Amino acid sequence: MSENGKKDVLLEVDDSVRETARNLVQAARYGALATLSTNDGYPQCTRVGLATFKDGTPFIFISALAAHTGALLADPRCALLVGEPGKGDPLAHPRISLSCRAEVVAPHLNDAKQARKIYLEAHSKAQLYIDLPDFRFFRLVLVKASFNGGFGRAYALSTADLMMQI
Amino acid sequence: MSENGKKDVLLEVDDSVRETARNLVQAARYGALATLSTNDGYPQCTRVGLATFKDGTPFIFISALAAHTGALLADPRCALLVGEPGKGDPLAHPRISLSCRAEVVAPHLNDAKQARKIYLEAHSKAQLYIDLPDFRFFRLVLVKASFNGGFGRAYALSTADLMMQI
Repeated sequence: MSENGKKDVLLEVDDSVRETARNLVQAARYGALATLSTNDGYPQCTRVGLATFKDGTPFIFISALAAHTGALLADPRCALLVGEPGKGDPLAHPRISLSCRAEVVAPHLNDAKQARKIYLEAHSKAQLYIDLPDFRFFRLVLVKASFNGGFGRAYALSTADLMMQI
Repeated sequence: MSENGKKDVLLEVDDSVRETARNLVQAARYGALATLSTNDGYPQCTRVGLATFKDGTPFIFISALAAHTGALLADPRCALLVGEPGKGDPLAHPRISLSCRAEVVAPHLNDAKQARKIYLEAHSKAQLYIDLPDFRFFRLVLVKASFNGGFGRAYALSTADLMMQI
């Protein structure tokens, strides 16, 4: 039992689980981002476009005009849910919840050029707004993750479980 | 300009916007729920199954074994994102972010019977787990909402904008 008494519902992580979880993150083109509101401490939940660096770190592309950007600049703690349901019970489909710290990718750095290239490969329509001055890339540095493969199939994943071997 | 200087990006709410936003919530069978972790204050983001009461209030059906349930019992502040993307740019599709306070629907009350009936109509597969003892309905009492109809079409909505006239 863990300190919160929930350990017994978690299954053991193996390589197959790691691969499925990594693939889910790599394949995601958007997700739900949870941030902490700067006004009232409520969590906020917004849709964001995303892609992943080669090492497996997800990054998002967001506008300074949106509430989540101010929230992340004030408090970088966030969560990202990826993995979309198909037909049938939405809870039977795999999804992963990442706990992250968001970091601005400084526009003059090589990482920003890399992010721009990867993002446009994943989001061809983003060509329309990729160079707008209010948009920035934020790297979501993984802290831990919770993978839910469907009913009764929950796993706690570490950063190492999710990062790519490069 | 509002105090956070973002007022100028919000459009005026009219009846058509209210109707579109209400329909989006009414039609949603699942959403992304943001809660506040009891362990470290990080936001959490998880998928939840949902339906709505006749007055327009959404409710979710969650297990005590899941982290979001403990989080909501400790701090009822949460957010719910609904409205799923279709083809093309995921950010071009309408979605709504609700700020809410979660309240347990006491199992012995008529509201719980009502919730059970409505939930099963929306989720026939939930018959498999609707009566498991660790599951509870939580009403998500609306505080405010942010409706994003696609690029450049953002609206701040009040509870009155989203509730049904019954």
